[in-house]
Amino acid sequence: MVAASSSSANVYPLSSYSFGSKEPKMEKDTSVADRLARMKVNYMKEGMRTSVEAILLVQEHNHPHILLLQIGNTFCKLPGGRLKPGENEIEGLKRKLTSKLGANNPGVVPDWQIGECVAVWWRPNFETIMYPYCPPHITKPKECKKLFLVHLSEREYFAVPKNLKLLAVPLFELYDNVQRYGPVISTIPQQLSRYQFNMITQ
Amino acid sequence: MVAASSSSANVYPLSSYSFGSKEPKMEKDTSVADRLARMKVNYMKEGMRTSVEAILLVQEHNHPHILLLQIGNTFCKLPGGRLKPGENEIEGLKRKLTSKLGANNPGVVPDWQIGECVAVWWRPNFETIMYPYCPPHITKPKECKKLFLVHLSEREYFAVPKNLKLLAVPLFELYDNVQRYGPVISTIPQQLSRYQFNMITQ
Repeated sequence: MVAASSSSANVYPLSSYSFGSKEPKMEKDTSVADRLARMKVNYMKEGMRTSVEAILLVQEHNHPHILLLQIGNTFCKLPGGRLKPGENEIEGLKRKLTSKLGANNPGVVPDWQIGECVAVWWRPNFETIMYPYCPPHITKPKECKKLFLVHLSEREYFAVPKNLKLLAVPLFELYDNVQRYGPVISTIPQQLSRYQFNMITQ
Repeated sequence: MVAASSSSANVYPLSSYSFGSKEPKMEKDTSVADRLARMKVNYMKEGMRTSVEAILLVQEHNHPHILLLQIGNTFCKLPGGRLKPGENEIEGLKRKLTSKLGANNPGVVPDWQIGECVAVWWRPNFETIMYPYCPPHITKPKECKKLFLVHLSEREYFAVPKNLKLLAVPLFELYDNVQRYGPVISTIPQQLSRYQFNMITQ
């Protein structure tokens, strides 16, 4: 077995991208309890939920930033969502990214380049807590969430739903900040630490 | 660009491995202050320190465990250490693993299969704190520490220095346990979450 060469990715300045807005994308649930209840109903029909989320990187001041969607004034999430039963992960993530961030004109939707899976999280029960492994003795997890690095081209146009804000958050703000960003997003810096980022300045 | 297929690794039961002991390997420093002072002296002579550490996986009850060296009753560390100036990372990690865990008889030293780099940590100053990125405005970091997954064969013999204990610690014990294991070791579960582990039972 040969040691893999280190992973790398090109990262372009935030200023290379342009941003517009489009119709709102409302959350399907208005409370955590509603969300868990809907998850349970869907589980009964379709089995384990698989969700896919994207890590979109940009740089400012030579430091990597991640694009997060902010709902209201506090809650942030990665763009992505739930796969349809049987749907391919890569195709499903492209569909979700276009729904969340693509323009309504298909000609200007980014050609999403889905890269490596960088994290997998498991939900053992119909509860908010997730783990970065399937806990021992759990034979029927309720959700598997996968995070993929998405390689952006040098120029893109993003259309942001009117009820959401798109933020570029630096890794140093996410790191060790579980209170603000939760366990999944706050450990992305550790999961990306093995990458060599080619910071492209223009 | 094609999405990489998910990474995988074979993980064998702890009971496939055998353990003996060998002469003590004493720590070079008796306090954190001594360690940082020695780091400073070496930095003046040799520049940034590069250290390499190994994640050695075994399984028990179908759950991955990591082999940690325990010093005294509390402090745990990954096997590994500092590279010599100019030394290749892979060769240096093999040298360190043999020094820490290999038998004195070279014929039974494991043929260390160094795999992928799974994490990189940076020390910006002569202080204990490290970050999973080089912080902005730091142009001369003092240490870069790289963690590699090491693929163990089905059978191995480890010789543990008499002053240390070798522990197999489950991922669920490390996860979210920065108090006991520190930031580097406690986030290994997140960094390994993308792997498909083939749990081999015998």
